[in-house]
Amino acid sequence: MNRFDHRRYPAFAPVPMTARRWPDRQIRRAPDWCSVDLRDGNQALIEPMTAAQKLRMWELLVKLGFKEIEVGFPSASGHDFAFVRNLIENDRIPDDVTIQVLTQAREELIARTFESLEGVPRAIVHVYNSTSTVQREQVFGLDREGIKEIAENGARLVKDYASRYPDTNWGFEYSPESFTGTELDFAVEVCDAVTAVWEPTPEKKVIINLPATVEMSTPNVYADQIEWFCDHVARRDSIILSLHTHNDRGCAVAAAELGVMAGADRIEGTLMGNGERTGNMDIITMAMNLYSQGVDPELNLAGMDEIIETVKACTQLPVHPRHPYAGELVFTAFSGSHQDAIKKCLTRRKDYESQPWEVAYLPIDPADIGRSYQEVIRINSQSGKGGVAYVMQADHGYDMPRWLQIDFSATVQAYAEDTEGEVGSSAIFSLFQETYLPENPRWRLNDYQLRRVDGVDNLELTIQDGSQSRQLTGTGNGVVAAFVDALERFVGKSIVLVEYSEHALSQSADAEAVCYIQLNIEGDRSCGVGRSHDIVQASLLAILGALSRSPALADTSSAAA
Amino acid sequence: MNRFDHRRYPAFAPVPMTARRWPDRQIRRAPDWCSVDLRDGNQALIEPMTAAQKLRMWELLVKLGFKEIEVGFPSASGHDFAFVRNLIENDRIPDDVTIQVLTQAREELIARTFESLEGVPRAIVHVYNSTSTVQREQVFGLDREGIKEIAENGARLVKDYASRYPDTNWGFEYSPESFTGTELDFAVEVCDAVTAVWEPTPEKKVIINLPATVEMSTPNVYADQIEWFCDHVARRDSIILSLHTHNDRGCAVAAAELGVMAGADRIEGTLMGNGERTGNMDIITMAMNLYSQGVDPELNLAGMDEIIETVKACTQLPVHPRHPYAGELVFTAFSGSHQDAIKKCLTRRKDYESQPWEVAYLPIDPADIGRSYQEVIRINSQSGKGGVAYVMQADHGYDMPRWLQIDFSATVQAYAEDTEGEVGSSAIFSLFQETYLPENPRWRLNDYQLRRVDGVDNLELTIQDGSQSRQLTGTGNGVVAAFVDALERFVGKSIVLVEYSEHALSQSADAEAVCYIQLNIEGDRSCGVGRSHDIVQASLLAILGALSRSPALADTSSAAA
Repeated sequence: MNRFDHRRYPAFAPVPMTARRWPDRQIRRAPDWCSVDLRDGNQALIEPMTAAQKLRMWELLVKLGFKEIEVGFPSASGHDFAFVRNLIENDRIPDDVTIQVLTQAREELIARTFESLEGVPRAIVHVYNSTSTVQREQVFGLDREGIKEIAENGARLVKDYASRYPDTNWGFEYSPESFTGTELDFAVEVCDAVTAVWEPTPEKKVIINLPATVEMSTPNVYADQIEWFCDHVARRDSIILSLHTHNDRGCAVAAAELGVMAGADRIEGTLMGNGERTGNMDIITMAMNLYSQGVDPELNLAGMDEIIETVKACTQLPVHPRHPYAGELVFTAFSGSHQDAIKKCLTRRKDYESQPWEVAYLPIDPADIGRSYQEVIRINSQSGKGGVAYVMQADHGYDMPRWLQIDFSATVQAYAEDTEGEVGSSAIFSLFQETYLPENPRWRLNDYQLRRVDGVDNLELTIQDGSQSRQLTGTGNGVVAAFVDALERFVGKSIVLVEYSEHALSQSADAEAVCYIQLNIEGDRSCGVGRSHDIVQASLLAILGALSRSPALADTSSAAA
Repeated sequence: MNRFDHRRYPAFAPVPMTARRWPDRQIRRAPDWCSVDLRDGNQALIEPMTAAQKLRMWELLVKLGFKEIEVGFPSASGHDFAFVRNLIENDRIPDDVTIQVLTQAREELIARTFESLEGVPRAIVHVYNSTSTVQREQVFGLDREGIKEIAENGARLVKDYASRYPDTNWGFEYSPESFTGTELDFAVEVCDAVTAVWEPTPEKKVIINLPATVEMSTPNVYADQIEWFCDHVARRDSIILSLHTHNDRGCAVAAAELGVMAGADRIEGTLMGNGERTGNMDIITMAMNLYSQGVDPELNLAGMDEIIETVKACTQLPVHPRHPYAGELVFTAFSGSHQDAIKKCLTRRKDYESQPWEVAYLPIDPADIGRSYQEVIRINSQSGKGGVAYVMQADHGYDMPRWLQIDFSATVQAYAEDTEGEVGSSAIFSLFQETYLPENPRWRLNDYQLRRVDGVDNLELTIQDGSQSRQLTGTGNGVVAAFVDALERFVGKSIVLVEYSEHALSQSADAEAVCYIQLNIEGDRSCGVGRSHDIVQASLLAILGALSRSPALADTSSAAA
């Protein structure tokens, strides 16, 4: 039963600051990034990533430019152990990338951790224990001294084991877990004890990571904690100060940003903020925030759709339509006055291309990350029974996904402007068919053959291109991936599958399926629809439809071939 | 084509502050809240709310305790105009609630705005114009003086028109739109010009609202802007200073919080942060942040599931599984060490119920908002082919939604612990059937009759309760709502439909449908599954299944009757 009563909660105690410096700083260079997608992110999934998904995520992280990647908790998970071995034994770690693994501060776990890393050229061993008052008193039943001994002991073991593997260039990281719930002087005391063991130097630093395991205060208080810590910790010049924030109060990005202003050098986080409960800090947002201020993010985020696709496929979590920089609606303007202002700025920009970006309502140029600005007119929709999506669903059985509604709205709008009248249900359906299911499509799908061998799908098919018949082949995980592969070779352009949705057509007596597809073809998004008695065929037709509607292919009769 | 190059963007200029005070403050009481769900939120939807959806949202906002609600832009939209008239003419505005409407600073629009409000006991007229450098130079082609004149003229017109309707208690609000892109001294100059016209007093204040129309800087800079503005604006004691932040950098909540510390009195935002592009400030998160610090949020957010259901139904947007306080995963722990710590704290708490809440990894007691803590074991899932959801889908055709996977995992885990072995595909399926589709359910569905009259569905049905046959009746918008209504009367408890999902069963030769339902029954969530050749029957069976599995009904053989 509910008992909604704020008096059950104590306020977070402020940090006694005398001469706070961080509010006067700006971030003028990117921090060192460390992705924890494969550890903290993976650990918070209902279905953790498979080996194949982990590899896919790893490859994306490397491609984006991460130089430090926490790849697992090998002493706690056989799957993580196997993944670390896979990376090492198959030589998958580029020379400028360092893997990192997490371990608790217990000897059997530390021993197993070093086993998992045998033969790696360089790696960071990240050891932690919980230090907060709640954890000390309620979970471990230990006093400060007892908790500090766990940390010291862990540090000593890590150092000892590292010396047994002299061929690896070792880095060390220590986290006082639940730092935000730990008295600051005790956090300093524990970290000083750890560095007293590790004896870092300015030439050979160690990482001290201060997690907001649970976000407990406004972000300025976290920044105060970081500045206070930096001012009081020993060997500051021999420490890389790292932050790892969580989003319980919706302020993980703000906390990390203010924390960097307060002195941190390094940030741990995940793509789109996946992680325990409310998630980790979203590195995409923080990096793009820097980018939008003229700071090199030191990550290449130009292929946002590919990032989204990979994150969704690996985590099985959605990306919210309003997710900063990445969501499907964030470069969309619905209001007439916003559209008008954007149009004026963009028109004017044509004469001032080289000038800094300054466009009302658009913090960055969507083209920078492979997207375009969309203007959406809401057609006669507030009546409830007249909206395009409603009519398509209620009268024609098509359950259009949101992104297709947006795509289609431009067509309906143009038609409405031409006819200057209300657009009826049958007119909407005709427009839909002309747009997405034309009687004479640019390409027709002929025969195809699909074979699955060793978990890989091989597709051979023929498409009709005007009077010519063309043989295509492709491979991939699943028929859709195999077809996209075949088409990439056919048109000679990179194609990313952005959205996919399929349903049975309820209005259809003989149970047809309809499939909706959105592709990103070299930065331009394009939607297609396929309809067939066979779900495979519906998918292939939808992809072919999207391809034929791509502006990137508009000027070629048959692009490659 | 992409051109990912940070050098295209200028850095945001810092505010020259000499003796900054806000970082030393804490928020010890809630600001005045103003919901803009029905205006800014609605304006950013692909399908704006219908009249019925607007009314549903309005009723929720009133129930949550909002005292100021911006209900539309009546001069720009006939639908908004009609909605305002509906509220006034049908006497739907409680005595302690004030409606607010937005208008641009043009006479014909202001005249029409006052027409829409005729007869209202009290209302706030919110007038705005754009003041940023980009808007001045690129959109309006006016200098500072020209822009200031628009504002002054708008203020004068609003005052004049208000005097023509003396029976209404008028409040005034002015927004220098795109405030974050406006030079601070000019923002002060424009607002001073407006208040010079309005002549507010400490007894009769006006609202000055400073929007981060686009979020352009780290949140501390926004707080600096607010503090600077408060220190320089005239008639500060006669102004209610309001903020309206957007989430372009993922920091809308942080900006609003730091802005309140910097002197603001009032916050405009929406439920779950719906709004243009990345959305408005999320009032749910900010209010719960206050709550978690022992501050009365002055909103009753105990029924979080009802809030989520209404927001989803009215906006047709999802709530992300990791949304602070509201998402389906935010009170879930996957890691063994987190689960262990939570268990220890919760066990210990039984002896200290009256003590302040202090539980590792759980910032608030989920029960406060009608939820419960969930622990999820990831069963043999990293192999990729062994995960429960994978097996259910690939081998048995059930595409389990995530929330059902979580619910089911506890059952599989208990079984796995009992048998101490791997849990095979057929064992998983048997468990699923025993759990959700038992051969002898507590209640059986007999005949039913559904009639739709004037847009309302009337359901009459008989269910078998052991040896007894029971007649039930219910009404609602759709069969599901009608059935929930009937069951609420039957069991005498409030029931909220939290989740609904249905698909054709691909493994079934004769095309059965399977439906998944999650109900919230007086604070406890309960899942049910229904399977039938008829999609209506499948839904009803799923609801009945969820009801029969509810812990809230476990101790009664037939709850009401």
